[in-house]
Formats: sequence, C-alpha cells, structure tokens
Amino acid sequence: MKKIIIGVMGPGPGATKKDIENAFSLGRGIAENGWALLTGGMPSGVMEAANRGAKESGGLTIGILPVDRSDLASPFVDIPIATGMGSARNNINILSSHIVIACGMGSGTASEIALAIKGGKQVILINELEESHSFFARLSPRQVFIAQNVDSAMGLVRKYLDSLPAVSNS
Amino acid sequence: MKKIIIGVMGPGPGATKKDIENAFSLGRGIAENGWALLTGGMPSGVMEAANRGAKESGGLTIGILPVDRSDLASPFVDIPIATGMGSARNNINILSSHIVIACGMGSGTASEIALAIKGGKQVILINELEESHSFFARLSPRQVFIAQNVDSAMGLVRKYLDSLPAVSNS
Amino acid sequence: MKKIIIGVMGPGPGATKKDIENAFSLGRGIAENGWALLTGGMPSGVMEAANRGAKESGGLTIGILPVDRSDLASPFVDIPIATGMGSARNNINILSSHIVIACGMGSGTASEIALAIKGGKQVILINELEESHSFFARLSPRQVFIAQNVDSAMGLVRKYLDSLPAVSNS
Amino acid sequence: MKKIIIGVMGPGPGATKKDIENAFSLGRGIAENGWALLTGGMPSGVMEAANRGAKESGGLTIGILPVDRSDLASPFVDIPIATGMGSARNNINILSSHIVIACGMGSGTASEIALAIKGGKQVILINELEESHSFFARLSPRQVFIAQNVDSAMGLVRKYLDSLPAVSNS
Repeated sequence: MKKIIIGVMGPGPGATKKDIENAFSLGRGIAENGWALLTGGMPSGVMEAANRGAKESGGLTIGILPVDRSDLASPFVDIPIATGMGSARNNINILSSHIVIACGMGSGTASEIALAIKGGKQVILINELEESHSFFARLSPRQVFIAQNVDSAMGLVRKYLDSLPAVSNS
Repeated sequence: MKKIIIGVMGPGPGATKKDIENAFSLGRGIAENGWALLTGGMPSGVMEAANRGAKESGGLTIGILPVDRSDLASPFVDIPIATGMGSARNNINILSSHIVIACGMGSGTASEIALAIKGGKQVILINELEESHSFFARLSPRQVFIAQNVDSAMGLVRKYLDSLPAVSNS
Repeated sequence: MKKIIIGVMGPGPGATKKDIENAFSLGRGIAENGWALLTGGMPSGVMEAANRGAKESGGLTIGILPVDRSDLASPFVDIPIATGMGSARNNINILSSHIVIACGMGSGTASEIALAIKGGKQVILINELEESHSFFARLSPRQVFIAQNVDSAMGLVRKYLDSLPAVSNS
Repeated sequence: MKKIIIGVMGPGPGATKKDIENAFSLGRGIAENGWALLTGGMPSGVMEAANRGAKESGGLTIGILPVDRSDLASPFVDIPIATGMGSARNNINILSSHIVIACGMGSGTASEIALAIKGGKQVILINELEESHSFFARLSPRQVFIAQNVDSAMGLVRKYLDSLPAVSNS
C-alpha cells in the first residue's frame, strides 16, 4: 500500500545549528507518525539530520540523490535513489512528496520551494529568514505556510493529510 | 540501513503471458529473500506482476514512475517516485538497482539493458528472443547473463550479491 | 565556435504586459549583440515575446522545452530541444546559459533563479516584485543583480561577458 | 523557423576508425543539406568527428552534453546544452531529433536506438555488428533501417524528410 511520503528539504553544508536540530526533530516526528521521510539523501546538513532522526524512531527513509552512486547516500537512508542528475533531481523530490517541509534556507532549498509551488504542492517553511517568508507567501499565499517551530510544522502536516480524500497509511 | 535493491525491468502492455508469470515469480522470490524490488512502477505488464508478486510475499516495492503523479503507480507499489521525466527515468532505474533483471523484451527494456551496461551494472536476461541474447552478450559479455528460468535468474542474483564486499541486508 | 548563450527566463501565461514588453526588448537586444537566446521555448508569455524579439532582429533562438515534442515550441524558436522532463528541465536552462536574465516572476522563474545561484551563475532580475529583490539579493548578493529596465539589464550582461577570460563570439 | 535536426549517435572513446570516417562524412552531408546536426556533444569519437565534418561544411552543430559545463563540449559544437544528467540525457538527444542515425555501436548508442524506437522515431543503423541489425530490426521493423554506407544513410534521411507533411528548412 502506498506510503505517505513527507519531504524535508534543506541545506547540506550550509545548514545552521538550529536547522540541524529542527531537521532531526522533524525526522523523528515523521517516523513516529508512521510516515516515510524523503530527502535529498546526502550525508550532510538537514538531509543527514532528518534521516538520523527518522531512523532513531524506526522510520523508513528515502533519499533522492543528485549523484549516480547509492553508496554516497547518508548511512541513515534506507532507500537511496541514484539519479545522477544534479539539481534537476530537486523536481523529483517535490513530485514524490505528499507535502514538503523546507527546513532552513539556501539556493537548493529555494528551488525546491519554488518547484513545489509550481507542482501544486503545499510547502511549510521553517527558518528565520524573514525575506523568504515574505517572498514565498507572496508568490503563492494558498500553498505556503510559515511554521514557528517543529510542533507547528507537524501540526500543519497532519492537518493537510486529514484534508486529503483517501490517503492510506500502511 | 541501506536495502538491497533488485531492479526488474520489462514491458508494460507488450508483456507476454510468460513474461507476466516470470515477473510475478521474480517479485515473490525477491521479497522472500528480504530484498527490495525496484520497477518502473506503472500498473501494467511486468511492472504490475513483479510488484504483485513481491507484495504477496510481504516485500517492499519501489516504483520509479515516468509520470509526475504518484497516484498513477501500480497499487502494489509502496514507494512511488514520481519523476515526470518519461523514458529519461530509465537511467534512474538502473543506477538505483544493485543488479538488474530484464524480464521480457521491448524498446524500453532494451534501453534499460543498454543503460545498465553503460552504468557498469550486471544484467540478467530472461526472455525468448534469441536476437537479444546474441546482441547484448556480444555488447558486454562480462555484464550480461542469460537465465533460462526464474530459478536460474534468482541464483545469479544471489551469486552476484555474495560477491560484493559489504552489502548489508536489513 | 561556441555561441554566447543568454538565458531569458520568465512566466508563460502569468506574464504581465510589462514583462512581455521587456522580454521582447531583451530578445531584440540579445540578437543585436550577436548572442544566442535561450528560453523555456513554449509559445506563451516571456518565452514567446523574447523569441519574437530575437527573430525580428535576425537572432538565433534555442528553446529547452518541458514537453517531449518539438512541434509544440514557439514558432520563433529555431532550435527546440525536447526534454520531456517538465520543470526538471529548468536546471538545463540555467546550466546552458552564460548568464541568466529573469524577466517577471512566478514559481517556475523563481526556481530558475535559485538553480542559477546554486549552479554558480549570475542572474539579473527585472521585475517589480520588491520581495523577490530582497530575497534573492539576500540569498546570494554576489550573483544577483537588480535591473531597473532593459537597458540596464543589457549593460549588466555586457559587463559580465567582458569580465570573462575567453568567450568567443561567432 | 524551426531547423531540421538530424541526430547522429555513436560511441566516444570506443569508436572504430571506420565509425570516425563515417561520422565525419555524415556531419559533412548533413551540413551540406542545410540541416542542423545534433550529437552528444563530447570531444571524442563519433561525436567529435560528426561535429568536425559539419563545421568543415559550415553547418550548425548542437551538442547535448551529459556533463554540467558547456566548456567541456567538443570545440566543433556551436550550441552546447549542458544537462548535467549523465546518460539520462540520451532521451533528450532522441526526442529533439527528427530522425536518428546510429553510427557505430556501444552501450550508450544501443540505449539511444532503443529510446528512439520507444519515442516513435526512425533510426538508421550504420555499423558492422550483424547482431545489432538482427536485434533492432526484430524489435521494430518499421522504424529501423540498415544502411550499408553513408550515401545510403543520407538517402534514407532525405526520403524520410520528404515524407513529412510540413517540415520547413530555413
């Protein structure tokens, strides 16, 4: 049965300490709810932390890698998908997630938020860059939500999933 | 911990009755060994049959979809990856699989065998088209193996995995 | 000899009247300088207008299409590249351009600006959405430039090309 | 006005002396007919030779690169498209060509022939590997043509273009 897949996008090496903490908590929360976690899959920053959090709570983790070798994935990724496509894989991250949480900010993350809007997805922003809130909320007020913290982000995810007609959770 | 991922490639609507039977048995065998199954994910032909087989034995199934919507995946796919890339996604199928079984033959399947060779993967052919055996074995004798039946194909997979230095199976 | 390729990115159906005017002038200016124009190639909005402008001045136009059929390109595109990849093709737009002008704003355009930053390219923004200026300039002050009008944008392009060690113009 | 684009696919480092000669002549013939040449764009083997041939006759050359940097293209490519997608770009080569000539044989070339068949294109094979003739002609007798030499291949291209309802040649 199809898993509910929650995407967590965020910077690799450029992640802040706060981003890492949030990503870890998001990963844990996603796993505790029985959802699968989808990230960019590389062993750094938000990707690594979210996957680590999800695995500590026994979750299932999917990594959509920009590189062409699965063995370069984070050790906390169960299912590495090797695209070999660089940043063009960002669109796959989005299309494959029921809903997207952007944790932290950087150029890759910004592209994923924009692609999520383009792809008709809802996106939750959790970061401290006011300019990103103003811009993306302006770009698509109905698809972009600002979360003050991880609990609030998790609440928004739950609310969104409840609104779906028939997503089954195995 | 990273799953062992076995790719099963084969025609959708063009699959023969024999291809469907083989695909179902391959899916079942892969699941029984605790490996994850990766296919093109669509609800027809070899993809559908392999996923159905794997789910009947409680396996984990990954579908790399050519379309951009997860809800178009086979109902027997647990993890639909929506690429929205058409046949360009064939390369992702290959790069993400430890080893590839080509079950049946068609233009999409032929492209996946060729991409697997290009990508340095081993490929097992199970089909009755002699011309495909001659051609691909000629193209890369060390990477292409012809299996007479599903048992033989599963044996080749096991032998290959045993030869790997350190693939862990969770 | 390799052409100098200038990317002009911008909304399709969502383009404003001002965006269309700017895109047309940009296309004309690019052609007059002997550079090739690269766009998303579809027959609407900024893409159509920029290509029309370039062709009126005898330029060479390249369209990187999200669709898989060249005949769906703008009639003002000389070289349609059919990717069949949807928005994943946005990364190709960026990687293939020496420098990128974002004319107008929308989710696709925002993804292209972000991917350009990620890909190490310079991006010139020409639009009236203040929030986009603040956000992208904050994201990468050294790569993002705000142009008040087409002349200013063309000046920035020229300045950038002059700074390159050895771009030849055929 | 849209160019007629002829794809020439073939091995890079694995090309034979005969493949290189044929590729050069094909490039020259394509340019002499006023058509644009599309290849994989890298500076080796069939790609390099075809582009060199086309440029010696003043043609226009397009290279769809697997890498993410235009400066790695063959010096005989006018329009390098940097995809950064590795072999997944093979599908773009096919979708963007009116008709495909496969000159020589290798795993990348085989994938392109198969993708061309999948994508509904006609493919002309010019190589000495009998097994490839048998296999691909069997796979799709109506789309695959075997040419004994470059003149014969060029004749098949011309015949195909004449059969199209309305391809304009600028």
